[in-house]
Amino acid sequence: MINQDTIVALATPSGAGAIAVIRLSGNDAIKIADSCFKSVTNNKSLTKQKTHTIHLGHIIDGAKTIDEVLVSVFKNPNSYTGEDVVEVSCHGSNYIQQEIIQLFLRKGCRMASAGEFTLRAFLNGKLDLSQAEAVADLIASDNEASHQIAMQQMRGGFSSEIAKLREELMNFASLIELELDFAEEDVEFADRTQFKELIERISLVLKRLIDSFAVGNVIKNGIPVAIVGEPNVGKSTLLNALLNEERAIVSDIAGTTRDTIEDEISIGGIGFRFIDTAGIRETKDVVESIGIKKTFEKIEQSQVVIYLFESLKFKNQSSEYITEIEKVKNKYPLKPLIVVINKVDLLNDDELAFIKNQLAPLNITLETISAKKHTGVDELKDELLSFVNTGALRNNDTIVTNTRHYDSLLKALEEIEKVKYGLETGLSGDLLAIDIRQALYYFGEITGEITNDDLLGNIFANFCIGK
Amino acid sequence: MINQDTIVALATPSGAGAIAVIRLSGNDAIKIADSCFKSVTNNKSLTKQKTHTIHLGHIIDGAKTIDEVLVSVFKNPNSYTGEDVVEVSCHGSNYIQQEIIQLFLRKGCRMASAGEFTLRAFLNGKLDLSQAEAVADLIASDNEASHQIAMQQMRGGFSSEIAKLREELMNFASLIELELDFAEEDVEFADRTQFKELIERISLVLKRLIDSFAVGNVIKNGIPVAIVGEPNVGKSTLLNALLNEERAIVSDIAGTTRDTIEDEISIGGIGFRFIDTAGIRETKDVVESIGIKKTFEKIEQSQVVIYLFESLKFKNQSSEYITEIEKVKNKYPLKPLIVVINKVDLLNDDELAFIKNQLAPLNITLETISAKKHTGVDELKDELLSFVNTGALRNNDTIVTNTRHYDSLLKALEEIEKVKYGLETGLSGDLLAIDIRQALYYFGEITGEITNDDLLGNIFANFCIGK
Repeated sequence: MINQDTIVALATPSGAGAIAVIRLSGNDAIKIADSCFKSVTNNKSLTKQKTHTIHLGHIIDGAKTIDEVLVSVFKNPNSYTGEDVVEVSCHGSNYIQQEIIQLFLRKGCRMASAGEFTLRAFLNGKLDLSQAEAVADLIASDNEASHQIAMQQMRGGFSSEIAKLREELMNFASLIELELDFAEEDVEFADRTQFKELIERISLVLKRLIDSFAVGNVIKNGIPVAIVGEPNVGKSTLLNALLNEERAIVSDIAGTTRDTIEDEISIGGIGFRFIDTAGIRETKDVVESIGIKKTFEKIEQSQVVIYLFESLKFKNQSSEYITEIEKVKNKYPLKPLIVVINKVDLLNDDELAFIKNQLAPLNITLETISAKKHTGVDELKDELLSFVNTGALRNNDTIVTNTRHYDSLLKALEEIEKVKYGLETGLSGDLLAIDIRQALYYFGEITGEITNDDLLGNIFANFCIGK
Repeated sequence: MINQDTIVALATPSGAGAIAVIRLSGNDAIKIADSCFKSVTNNKSLTKQKTHTIHLGHIIDGAKTIDEVLVSVFKNPNSYTGEDVVEVSCHGSNYIQQEIIQLFLRKGCRMASAGEFTLRAFLNGKLDLSQAEAVADLIASDNEASHQIAMQQMRGGFSSEIAKLREELMNFASLIELELDFAEEDVEFADRTQFKELIERISLVLKRLIDSFAVGNVIKNGIPVAIVGEPNVGKSTLLNALLNEERAIVSDIAGTTRDTIEDEISIGGIGFRFIDTAGIRETKDVVESIGIKKTFEKIEQSQVVIYLFESLKFKNQSSEYITEIEKVKNKYPLKPLIVVINKVDLLNDDELAFIKNQLAPLNITLETISAKKHTGVDELKDELLSFVNTGALRNNDTIVTNTRHYDSLLKALEEIEKVKYGLETGLSGDLLAIDIRQALYYFGEITGEITNDDLLGNIFANFCIGK
């Protein structure tokens, strides 16, 4: 164990709830907790209790009783951190939480920094580094896909694949380095054909993992979708229809416009972040032209654009609106654009045909929906999902979501390509060995066999306190 | 046990944290949890585990793993509710919390209603009613005084006092009712002198408890203090000085004024709710006169008024400001008013004497402070605390904070006074017995020996879900 001091932090979200959990970890965790604990039954001491047991009593500060609590005892190495751990489940008042934490600090604990419990778990060998990182992803996961990936990574899916390749490569590296010791004798311990095969295989795996990052990134962060449309055109109706529920959308009221609807919706397990924008009609009004500029900025940030119209208004002003659509299409020719006509139930068949006819020359994706009659919504969902390569997800493949892993994989691939080139051109063993070692280094960075304090600091600073 | 079904709810605050706790209670709690749980060690079954033990494993939904969790098992009657209870400690993502709760609901749990865990604890005799109510108070407590009272009440301080009186009164009631059976023989089983003494004692205790409600109410809800003062006069500086810290105040920005500073600060363990108001200078501006009306409304809602001025401004415009102060004083002659001169370090002794002189005829409380030089702040704190009768609190007396208890105590006192009058006027035993029974009824209402569904519904509806 590297850290000898005992850390404490609130493990549950702050704010009032029925209960809150305060977590201690370290050599003195049980001793410190015991010094503030009075069991309801006799004079039970926490230090004498078995691991994984729960004890009812009071947290006391001298003569003052702070709260009635349940205390859970975990003995090293059978705990999350691998150290002695105590969890105090108290009543969920902010005041009580603070009083208990302050008491533990006075008794010799130190306030845990962000991610320090998980850092200790890593340092004590309970998790490898990519598993530790998955813990943060798991806590942040808010849809099925990101949860599934984080879960797979936490269970070691990703690191075990890397570790296996690393081991095979390490074996060959040893053999090649052995050859160097017998350089005069011109022996070949490492079978060059097998080695070429391995390098080829590693290269393929790396490329697949690197490619998966695009999907992984989308899954982890959600796909930004700009909804362009005038006020009252039915943006919240559209979002509600996509949500399949009549519940009100949690609006994120922006400082200036005050009517922005921004929400993340999970469709088919994938998160879509909807970004509200005003329309882009030509105007001489200064304020409105600022609005148009903002609309374009938001379109730029998004991966898909939904252009939303109200059916009757579109029918009456179609040429004007088509000019708008063309403007967006010309400005962003490569960005997927879906034109959605809302309240299509207000149109008769002739009117609908007229609109479709008008839009045909633009060669864009058109979806007509009626939130009222529940038509067209599933088609729009399918359309949105078609922008995500969910194949990998369905096949339960390993997907890279972490920028740090992505960087290491890219660097490892670069080195592997060098090794491959070296093998093809008959590079000498000593030079070959350097490139292999470098590739091994980048593999080790992912799983945490190779770390430095800066790297660890960066990773765990992104955790919440208490984990 | 009255409820046979198994309930489930999130027990920790919603939102993302390191961990979240999901709680199940009821006959099938362990069976249901076990059906979704796969232990990391062999095929451990939760149903075969001892009470107060913790088990590491995964929550699984068919082939899908939802999360790695710790499961705590509590067997009836040794649990919070007195039923079988399972607590699942999972990763704190909203998605995971929802998935696990949904899974338990599909497996046969019912969503718990607000306070239902504590209601069950009450119905199963783990707590009396006033103790159960103290649980909600404890969770809501946000300063030392309210926490101390809730803690005392939860440990039975209040109800044991009432229960003791109730028992004594019950004994006499039985004796008097016994006399009725021997009415022809004109016996007196109940010693009238002792009985008068008891009634006198009960009456005194009830009056003390009823009187304590005023203090209790202040402690529970905080004392509203209106701070009257123009913008930039140093309201946040004042609050920070009272807080003794340089931390930024959590501002509650109101919809219209956008610069209201409202905060609750604990001074000497008592909560003070500060209500920001604009000044009340005479004006012809319609908008501003609406502001003045609001200021008066807020002064009306408060128990204490602090009138805050900046020293240099006050020196230069003292006559104007004194007119303002007089206006408030005349409008609310009985409301305590403290005039606070901020930034007093900017004045020399002569200037300060001048101001004091000017204010002398008003006969008001004046405090001069300098947040910069840390002077006057303790005096202001003492001044504020002088409005609270903290004697009872210091003496560790029982304090009533609950409106329901207060009502029952008032009604009980009314009946006791009737009994007293009856005893003095030689009322017949049968009529005396009726009043005594009625007093006993109100005592029973407090501790929960006498309840009805409406009463229970009202009490537990104010709880948070999960408790």
